[in-house]
Amino acid sequence: MVSRPVGFEQQASSGALGSVDLGPADLVPFDDRGLAYGDGLFETVLLRAGAPVLWEHHRARLALGCDRLGIPFPCQDALDATWQGDPTAELEVLKLILTRGSGGRGYAEPESITPRLLSRRTPFQPVVKRWQEGVRVRLCNLRLGHQPYLAGIKHLNRLENVLARREWRDASIAEGLLADSAGRVVEATSMNVFWQQAGALFTPPLDQCGVAGTLRAALIDQGAVTQAALPLGELSAVDQLWVANSVQGVWPVTTLFSTNGSRLQRWPLPASDPLQCLAHPLLGFA
Amino acid sequence: MVSRPVGFEQQASSGALGSVDLGPADLVPFDDRGLAYGDGLFETVLLRAGAPVLWEHHRARLALGCDRLGIPFPCQDALDATWQGDPTAELEVLKLILTRGSGGRGYAEPESITPRLLSRRTPFQPVVKRWQEGVRVRLCNLRLGHQPYLAGIKHLNRLENVLARREWRDASIAEGLLADSAGRVVEATSMNVFWQQAGALFTPPLDQCGVAGTLRAALIDQGAVTQAALPLGELSAVDQLWVANSVQGVWPVTTLFSTNGSRLQRWPLPASDPLQCLAHPLLGFA
Repeated sequence: MVSRPVGFEQQASSGALGSVDLGPADLVPFDDRGLAYGDGLFETVLLRAGAPVLWEHHRARLALGCDRLGIPFPCQDALDATWQGDPTAELEVLKLILTRGSGGRGYAEPESITPRLLSRRTPFQPVVKRWQEGVRVRLCNLRLGHQPYLAGIKHLNRLENVLARREWRDASIAEGLLADSAGRVVEATSMNVFWQQAGALFTPPLDQCGVAGTLRAALIDQGAVTQAALPLGELSAVDQLWVANSVQGVWPVTTLFSTNGSRLQRWPLPASDPLQCLAHPLLGFA
Repeated sequence: MVSRPVGFEQQASSGALGSVDLGPADLVPFDDRGLAYGDGLFETVLLRAGAPVLWEHHRARLALGCDRLGIPFPCQDALDATWQGDPTAELEVLKLILTRGSGGRGYAEPESITPRLLSRRTPFQPVVKRWQEGVRVRLCNLRLGHQPYLAGIKHLNRLENVLARREWRDASIAEGLLADSAGRVVEATSMNVFWQQAGALFTPPLDQCGVAGTLRAALIDQGAVTQAALPLGELSAVDQLWVANSVQGVWPVTTLFSTNGSRLQRWPLPASDPLQCLAHPLLGFA
């Protein structure tokens, strides 16, 4: 039995909450601040047999985001209710959206905040071919702006990512690499970036921009990956490059293209992929 | 008679569209990209006796935003339908939200875009006391990040403004001044900034960050105001300072406070306010 938590509006769009009436499922009103200003956060969580993977890392990032934005963190019951219930597939993706809720005068938040928590579950299959054969990636023209107040958290202001993803339509390009205004590699449009140099694994620091992924956090916590700056000019010289996240897993980059489509670098597939060996067990991938 | 324009979903929440059925009024679905990513634009328009004020400037800014984001610009009928209909008050505020609509895979937009246009009308009264007595303003700690792809347009990624507005709760402070990461004054949280120096009127350029207001645009078009940089260190030395927008009109700043609440500068009220004399006729204010 799921009850509506005090002070939270909660809506779910799968059958996960059964017959519990949580208002107009799956809809937000005009005055929701998530819609009006992107005033909120989201999480995209892999569910395996109905159980969230890397859940504590997702909770931690959501909590950090709530702290930065000043949005009350949902109670345990409310968060758990988003994924509890019978799975519809072995693998699903759970998307959570948490907004500051409705109201306030313009940008000023209302006296009393009632955050709105929405969720949706969708069956999912990873692209195994990309694990095995690697991916082609291009550099994006757009440079991420610096904003330390928003860096790292998964907030709803994602126009930079949307605009970067609009830079190409070629389906053979799996991802776009984003650098910041200082010319340092930050992330891919929807994945984090990792590289190998002299046998060690690295990922860029995300204290000025970018989204700190949960798989990245787990790998850093394990001591498997170290944060280091990667200027664009040094990108072609790394021994191996990957893009990865907690839903898709780890894709080795085999070819890197410039913003004008010319080939900058090729990497052979690693015989035994060191990042996959570390990361895929965390996600339950073979 | 208002008809639903081809290729656009349109929803209005006042009585303005009468009995025309435009779907579930005033609600957007979970997968709307405005909610998911702030992937859209908005406008806040003063209506006088039901007619939009500075409408061509609002249309022009919306068109610029659509061009930057790659969102189809709504047809004339769709836009006009948002304000046509009997007014409920002499003055109203019309808020438009235009999103890229639903769909796509993650940040990638769908093959076919169906933008969603939402609108709401609310009765409004300007704060005449602030025109007459001026306002107290504080500097914000948050610095606006540079992002030329998004600068000037009124997009839905407004977390910087929300966070800046959260920096104070003292109701006697009317606005917060925002500088950029280079230490130049850019705007107030929901208004543009103007100043007078040696008899001439200026406003900051907004090519790296900030929202280019329609009143500001009209004043620049008139040749009444010139764009110029204003480093924070020179702020206290200007002859007069104002914050203004196309809904509230022009507020002279009488006192400026630092981020820690100490008083930085006081300005006497201008005997005959030169910016109000130029701007208020454009808005129909006495």
